[in-house]
Amino acid sequence: MAVYTEVSDAELSALLTLYDIGTPRSFKGIAEGVENSNYLLHTDKGRYILTLYEKRVKKADLPFFLQLKNHLAAKGISCPVPIARKDGDVLSELAGRPAAIISFLDGMSVRRPDVEHCRALGKALAQMHLAGQDFTMRRDNELSLNGWQALFDQCRDRANEVHPNLGADIEAELTRIKRDWPKDLPQGIIHADLFMDNVFFVGAKLSGMIDFYFACTDMLAYDLAIVLNAWCFETDVNFNVTKAHALFEAYRAIRPLSQEEIAALPVLASGAAMRFLLTRLYDHLHQVEGALVRPKDPMDYLRRLRFHKKVTRPQDYGISDEGQ
Amino acid sequence: MAVYTEVSDAELSALLTLYDIGTPRSFKGIAEGVENSNYLLHTDKGRYILTLYEKRVKKADLPFFLQLKNHLAAKGISCPVPIARKDGDVLSELAGRPAAIISFLDGMSVRRPDVEHCRALGKALAQMHLAGQDFTMRRDNELSLNGWQALFDQCRDRANEVHPNLGADIEAELTRIKRDWPKDLPQGIIHADLFMDNVFFVGAKLSGMIDFYFACTDMLAYDLAIVLNAWCFETDVNFNVTKAHALFEAYRAIRPLSQEEIAALPVLASGAAMRFLLTRLYDHLHQVEGALVRPKDPMDYLRRLRFHKKVTRPQDYGISDEGQ
Repeated sequence: MAVYTEVSDAELSALLTLYDIGTPRSFKGIAEGVENSNYLLHTDKGRYILTLYEKRVKKADLPFFLQLKNHLAAKGISCPVPIARKDGDVLSELAGRPAAIISFLDGMSVRRPDVEHCRALGKALAQMHLAGQDFTMRRDNELSLNGWQALFDQCRDRANEVHPNLGADIEAELTRIKRDWPKDLPQGIIHADLFMDNVFFVGAKLSGMIDFYFACTDMLAYDLAIVLNAWCFETDVNFNVTKAHALFEAYRAIRPLSQEEIAALPVLASGAAMRFLLTRLYDHLHQVEGALVRPKDPMDYLRRLRFHKKVTRPQDYGISDEGQ
Repeated sequence: MAVYTEVSDAELSALLTLYDIGTPRSFKGIAEGVENSNYLLHTDKGRYILTLYEKRVKKADLPFFLQLKNHLAAKGISCPVPIARKDGDVLSELAGRPAAIISFLDGMSVRRPDVEHCRALGKALAQMHLAGQDFTMRRDNELSLNGWQALFDQCRDRANEVHPNLGADIEAELTRIKRDWPKDLPQGIIHADLFMDNVFFVGAKLSGMIDFYFACTDMLAYDLAIVLNAWCFETDVNFNVTKAHALFEAYRAIRPLSQEEIAALPVLASGAAMRFLLTRLYDHLHQVEGALVRPKDPMDYLRRLRFHKKVTRPQDYGISDEGQ
């Protein structure tokens, strides 16, 4: 849930003089994205999203995010794209913050994805990975091994407030993950935050992906590991192998996975679980009074981590031996 | 800013089977209204607002609010109207709360209204008052004299935490307002919360009024006094007599004010200031941890109260002697 920064009608009108998207008919703050303030803007020419980038997004990263969406859209990937101003620029300033007007994407997120949703996502994720292969900008993943260690260092002393022995558990798992972390897997542009909130469907059909503000350059199979964690566990944190099977098979039909990628999935999935365990733990221990976002429970991701630690065969993830 | 209750795609789909408004294309929680959760719903047939009534709105009052909007709309007043279900009912249940689907109203609220906005509002308010005259349901104003006393009783002991001597100030003003409160002025349906957030404009044209969840039966001139407080003071709480003149003259051109109503305006405006002073004071002293709404400053309304206390002539409000 968002809308941190209020935008007045006067500020909006001044901004719109820079664009050629018509005059406003309605303008509403929306509860979408947790890092930025988002408004849904209707003009007499169409629907748009106005995003104000709050401090968690670095201004220096904005050209990467905005150009990536243009690149993917040009390759046929359905994602929101920045609208150029009359002067050609896509980045503006509003209420003291960097701001962009983005195209509106139809669709709704699902709370409890079924097997068909997972299948559709597997296909779309592989298509996005292929489409990103010739994107020339790169952005390091700040939330990989080094980032996790830095987060843990800020939570270590108080981790046990959240759960007995959590500090030692994380420390041991971090050591294991670092030791086994793969080095030579295919890299490319990954979304890195493809939770249910960020994938839209119209009916059963996947209509697009949004919120590329964690996108970065990393192992493609790591993106799949993030999605596995987000989409293939039930709300009671039980693993649903049928959903995982659908996800992987649909992905592999578009972009085959190498044996090395498949073999690395358990540690990649452990790392993905660690990443969300740590950011949730950090947010839990550093709650801002009056903040509009309620921190999510970090323990759900410790349970996922424990699951992945025990995975020894591709079949445990529903991946069939014969592959493609 | 709202959206207290999250609605899943499955809950929405189940609800929509009761209506004949098409299939959903997008569905976004919006920051509108502070008492309820509101979603903007696009379907293949149009745009709608889905409102979930949170606990501050009494379920027994909902038929009044929903039928009032139908009544006003039928008389040509631009306001959102409830959409009837296939079975004719307008009230549903969703996520354990009463819920209604309401028509979407184009327009945007202004943060700093100018004289023309005040003039347009004066006209629209008078038209709404006339349109409400033959509405047969009634609802007592719970936030009038008795309600203020009850609120003050819950804040009295801690009022001075907010401002030195605030408790005694309010007590003296409550006594004065009760003593001078008018008894025989024309009554009818009033909106009772017509702040800038609740009036929409498309360009300079008033496109409608929303959020009738404080509407009740009370003195019509009291509604005007609420609007006077909300629209005719600058952000530094200085009174703008030009805006007040435009408001009153536009109102009187549609619904003439009697000499008794004009004479009562200073005490009605004092009462209106007292009402918002007390609800803001109450909210300030009873902040809920983790609440999504930041309490507004009660002192702005003490300053308005002091202004109205000194008003002795209609001219002080920009009302000319000669009337129409």
